Amino acid sequence: MSPEIKRRGLMLVLSSPSGAGKTTLSRLLLESDPAITLSVSATTRPKRATEVEGRDYHFISREEFDSWIRKDAFLEHAVVFDHRYGTPRSPVMDALAAGRDVLFDIDWQGTQQLKERAREDLVSIFILPPSHAELERRLKERAQDSDESVSRRMAKAGDEISHWPEYDYVIVNRDIDRALSQVKAILEAERARRSRLIGVGEFVAGLMR
Amino acid sequence: MSPEIKRRGLMLVLSSPSGAGKTTLSRLLLESDPAITLSVSATTRPKRATEVEGRDYHFISREEFDSWIRKDAFLEHAVVFDHRYGTPRSPVMDALAAGRDVLFDIDWQGTQQLKERAREDLVSIFILPPSHAELERRLKERAQDSDESVSRRMAKAGDEISHWPEYDYVIVNRDIDRALSQVKAILEAERARRSRLIGVGEFVAGLMR
Repeated sequence: MSPEIKRRGLMLVLSSPSGAGKTTLSRLLLESDPAITLSVSATTRPKRATEVEGRDYHFISREEFDSWIRKDAFLEHAVVFDHRYGTPRSPVMDALAAGRDVLFDIDWQGTQQLKERAREDLVSIFILPPSHAELERRLKERAQDSDESVSRRMAKAGDEISHWPEYDYVIVNRDIDRALSQVKAILEAERARRSRLIGVGEFVAGLMR
Repeated sequence: MSPEIKRRGLMLVLSSPSGAGKTTLSRLLLESDPAITLSVSATTRPKRATEVEGRDYHFISREEFDSWIRKDAFLEHAVVFDHRYGTPRSPVMDALAAGRDVLFDIDWQGTQQLKERAREDLVSIFILPPSHAELERRLKERAQDSDESVSRRMAKAGDEISHWPEYDYVIVNRDIDRALSQVKAILEAERARRSRLIGVGEFVAGLMR
C-alpha cells in the first residue's frame, strides 16, 4: 500500500456587498459539503428575533469582546455599523488541524486581517450582484426589515465592492445554481493544490520503490 | 446594462508519467468542454500507423524542426527518447487572444519552458498513478506495443514523476471519473481567478453608478 496523501484544511472567505446572495450561497455550500464548517463570529450587536446563539453568532458583551481581544482570542475583528464583530480563533485552528475546511462570511476588513494571519491557507472569493437594478432592488427589500436606510446600505455596498481587487476569485451571481457550482469548483480545485498536500513525496517514493 | 466581464484564455498543462491515464483524461476533457482546444505538438519522430497528421502531431523533418527553432516559432521544445517535440506558438497565441483555453499534453521539460513564457497564463496539473503495482502493470502493457523496454519506461516514469513539486495541482488518478471531475473543477476555478478577468472595474462602476 502506498502511504496516503493528506491535506491541510483551508479557510474559504466569501465576501460581497449585502444583497449579492452571499448568505444563500454559504448556506447551500454548507448543506452540500460535509467537509466544510462555518466559522461562527462573535458580535456585540443585539440578537435579532430570528437568530440563534451559537448558530448565527456568539452574542457577547462589549466587555467580553475587549477581553477576547486582549487574550488574542480573535483571528480578526472589526467595527461595522457601530457594532463589533470577531472570529474566535480556536475552533478554526482545531478544524484546520483536522484537515477540515472552514467557511468565513466576513467583510473586507476581516478578510485583510485574516490574510495576514492565514497566508496560504486562505482562499478568498468576492461575489458581485448581476446589475445595479438588482442590487438596488435587494437593498430596498432588506431596508424594510431594519432601521437602516437604503442610502446607508448602498454606501456600505459601494465601500465593500471597492475591495474586490483584494480577492483571489470573482464571481458574478447571475444565477444561484451557477454561482454555487463555481464556488464548489474553487473549493475542489484548491483542495488539490500542491502546496496544501501533505505526504506527496512519500507517496511518490512508494510508486517508484 | 452592465458591461460584460471577459477573461484571458489560460494554458492548462497536464503532465504525468506514461501510464497514469493522462491521455484518457485529456480526451475526456476535450470532449466535454468546447471552450478548450488541444495544442498539437510538432515532432520529428516517425508517424505510427494509428496516428493522424495534424490531430496527434505535426510530423516534420529534423531540418524543418531546426528552422522553426531559428524562427522562434516554438513556445517550448525538447528532446525525448532521441526525438524532438515542440509546441507551435501561433495557434496558442490566437486561441488565448480569443479568450479560449489551450490544453497541453507535455512533459516536465516542456512545462518548465512554457512556465517561463506564459507566467500567470499557465495552470499546471500533475497526474499520479494510484500505486506502484498499477503503474508497473500499465507500463508492461504499453511496452508490448513498442520497441521500448519496461525498465526504460520505468526509468522515464521516475524521471517525470520527480518533477511533481513544480506543478500547481496534484491529482492521484484512482478513478478516471473522479480525476476528470477534479481537472474540470480546476479549470472552472482558474477561469474565475481575479487576475485573469478583464473589465471587472468597469462592471463594478456600472453597479454603483
